[in-house]
Amino acid sequence: MSELITPVILCGGSGTRLWPLSRRGYPKQFAAIAGEGTLLQQTARRMAAPGFAPPVLVTHADFRFIATQQLAEAGVDPGPVLLEPEGRNTGPALLAAALHVAREDPERVLLAAPSDHAIADVAAFRRATAEALPAARAGRIVTFGVVPDRVETGFGHLQIADGDGPVRPLRRFAEKPSAAAARRMMDAGCLWNAGLFMARAATLVEAFAVHAPAMLAAVRAALAAARPDLGFLRLDRKAWRACPDRSVDFAVMEAAGNLDVVSLAGGWSDMGGWEAVYRGAEADENGVVCQGEAEGFDCRRSLLRAEGGGQRLVGLGLDNIVAVAMPDAVLVADRSRAGDLGAVVRAMRNANVAQADSFPKTHRPWGHFETLIRGERFLVKRIVVDPGGRLSLQKHGHRAEHWVVVSGVAQATIGAATRSIAENESVFIPVGAVHRLENPGTAPVELIEVQTGAFLDEDDIVRLDDAYARPVDAQAALLT
Amino acid sequence: MSELITPVILCGGSGTRLWPLSRRGYPKQFAAIAGEGTLLQQTARRMAAPGFAPPVLVTHADFRFIATQQLAEAGVDPGPVLLEPEGRNTGPALLAAALHVAREDPERVLLAAPSDHAIADVAAFRRATAEALPAARAGRIVTFGVVPDRVETGFGHLQIADGDGPVRPLRRFAEKPSAAAARRMMDAGCLWNAGLFMARAATLVEAFAVHAPAMLAAVRAALAAARPDLGFLRLDRKAWRACPDRSVDFAVMEAAGNLDVVSLAGGWSDMGGWEAVYRGAEADENGVVCQGEAEGFDCRRSLLRAEGGGQRLVGLGLDNIVAVAMPDAVLVADRSRAGDLGAVVRAMRNANVAQADSFPKTHRPWGHFETLIRGERFLVKRIVVDPGGRLSLQKHGHRAEHWVVVSGVAQATIGAATRSIAENESVFIPVGAVHRLENPGTAPVELIEVQTGAFLDEDDIVRLDDAYARPVDAQAALLT
Repeated sequence: MSELITPVILCGGSGTRLWPLSRRGYPKQFAAIAGEGTLLQQTARRMAAPGFAPPVLVTHADFRFIATQQLAEAGVDPGPVLLEPEGRNTGPALLAAALHVAREDPERVLLAAPSDHAIADVAAFRRATAEALPAARAGRIVTFGVVPDRVETGFGHLQIADGDGPVRPLRRFAEKPSAAAARRMMDAGCLWNAGLFMARAATLVEAFAVHAPAMLAAVRAALAAARPDLGFLRLDRKAWRACPDRSVDFAVMEAAGNLDVVSLAGGWSDMGGWEAVYRGAEADENGVVCQGEAEGFDCRRSLLRAEGGGQRLVGLGLDNIVAVAMPDAVLVADRSRAGDLGAVVRAMRNANVAQADSFPKTHRPWGHFETLIRGERFLVKRIVVDPGGRLSLQKHGHRAEHWVVVSGVAQATIGAATRSIAENESVFIPVGAVHRLENPGTAPVELIEVQTGAFLDEDDIVRLDDAYARPVDAQAALLT
Repeated sequence: MSELITPVILCGGSGTRLWPLSRRGYPKQFAAIAGEGTLLQQTARRMAAPGFAPPVLVTHADFRFIATQQLAEAGVDPGPVLLEPEGRNTGPALLAAALHVAREDPERVLLAAPSDHAIADVAAFRRATAEALPAARAGRIVTFGVVPDRVETGFGHLQIADGDGPVRPLRRFAEKPSAAAARRMMDAGCLWNAGLFMARAATLVEAFAVHAPAMLAAVRAALAAARPDLGFLRLDRKAWRACPDRSVDFAVMEAAGNLDVVSLAGGWSDMGGWEAVYRGAEADENGVVCQGEAEGFDCRRSLLRAEGGGQRLVGLGLDNIVAVAMPDAVLVADRSRAGDLGAVVRAMRNANVAQADSFPKTHRPWGHFETLIRGERFLVKRIVVDPGGRLSLQKHGHRAEHWVVVSGVAQATIGAATRSIAENESVFIPVGAVHRLENPGTAPVELIEVQTGAFLDEDDIVRLDDAYARPVDAQAALLT
């Protein structure tokens, strides 16, 4: 039996309430919102300490490369990475991780954490973890309750049994309360439900067996039929689709009788929207928060945030406004309405507005790229190929490509010839030529790609070979 | 004596109250704000009709190419173009034009117009022009008075003598009034001073002789020492600097005794700020104006404007807000405070914020370019060379350049060799190579330039020869 706690990082969310920073194509856990690194990296680092095993990561298949790349950048060794074929809420995700760990060691203690929350005080978090551990080892499910610093109607609350000590039995879950009820609960010592749980793998599996047997059967089947893929474990799509779409809370916790609560007073935030970002930041004496290249003139109680790309954001005479500028999308909202952003993004999605879901930067197993400008007959991209990265061997029926290497040394295969392209050098790939781009070196390769031609479409690709076991056909993305 | 009216287009303004759309480096007269074409183009087209001679344009030397290019695009034949070495307000500018015309024909009737105002009803403008003409021929200075459609404290007002007929003597100029006074004046039939004047060239010169003799002497000297330059007439810098910096109104009109007023009811706007743009646009039933790729959700009384570049602007729950998004700068202001934008831009200028004054697109005599992205070791530009355009023969000490032609056929000289580069083709200019880019064809050439090197600075250029008589030295701009 391992003495180590195994973190389970639930990384499947796709929140839109931080649009335009968080989009379906690039959810908030991968964004740097506050503090150093992204929310996923902060989550992983919080649990990368003596006493912790490498984390189990559960994420959507689309995000596998960015998730593992971010962990690597954060210096966190990844443990198993389970890939969900589609989102099914936190219930099946946590259960899959628990079953996977339990196959090796059912006594292992898991600490399940969302990847898109922030906890300012890491020491407080680790203290709560240590306090929770004995109860978890003893077969309890310990949920983390955040000590409220305000009346809050947006979170579920936890009512705790009277008594002393940092860990006490849960009396009951209370759904999102009214303002009056929230005030009463805060005064009565209720805590916020932070969605963090600690329990033995076997304890969790038993709880699902009792309270969510259909989910257990489906997740077992998805795991049994899972197939390894380049170090990832792909859960079986058909079985996964049969899983009920339910949160951990709803599926088992609200019914389980063996719950304890450990209290956490460490600047926790669910980063559930721009209001949470505003609240978590340091405001000036007028209540104004400026992030990035943003500046307010005679503003009050406002959040002004510029995401980079050389864009300057200026606020003038604003009160209670949140403004977020990105090169491809800008949000300006009344702060009191920022919670309605989900509906706005849905409306944009229904109107086929690309920015609703897609993000200017795209991650690939070999690195990433971003579109700089799209003209009628040309497209300019900035491409970064990670050390060892290798694009698929491919050809295009309608477009020519020009690569200009701006840093590093790339290796280009065009037809039968392979050659190095150093900084300042460029290479031309004629229409129809079979080609491949690689970075054999140890530093990233950065290059500018100019595509030219009358037909610049994502479908114009034939993949002939791929190092990352991706489909070798014409339905692949523009740059692969 | 010519029967034609000679328009004098005053194109020297550099307003910042429409920032970020209007900047010192690209003032609002060159921007497409409402209706078809830019404000300068609309101004020129309004006076391009039977009865009008080609316009005299007075502009700052920095704007000579963009001004003439815009006139050409608008299909307006330019007359003389006088270049101010620096801004001296409208007094000296109008006087220079009047003196220039008077040298040939002092009886010629001039119609002086700012280039940065909008007049929705062109027929009404032409009607007022025709009504004013007899008085102007008879030696009067006819100023155009706009019939107010609201109480307005931001404009000077014109009190007119009682009587009938469209043209009546001016009784007096009233400065910007209080709200109560503005209401009284509106009720009493006062008109707004629109800054449009019609008079014989000799009449204007005489008025300056009487009321602004120092200005007349200085402008005469600047014109006498002016030197022709590629079809432009450069006013003498030293003499020009001696000119008092004064508006036409202040220099002569408020003192002259021979003023008439013709009334104009044609949707005039000074486009003096975002409030004017909002007022001039068609709002939906909630008072929301969306321009470009902008959309409001549950907004009221707001202006949401996206300037292009693929950027989407979303407003949520806003009331009384103006938001203007450009790829390099975003403004969000309370509408009631948009008039304070000048002070905000000054503050940014003092803080060396590039976006305060500089504009992403730069015009040159041969075409224009815009910076797409600047990295640590590279810079990507989109360059458009007009038909017949010819960059200077130049070389760089530290950077290499790669040109990829995306449309048209360019001609590149590199060292001793000259060759054509067609669509899809590219060419490499090594560090230190003498080179020149030209467009010998009849269609614009569009190309992507990738600069690489560790030192990418504007000063890294040696101009060896230039078709546009620009300084051949190292102090020239990055792309010339």
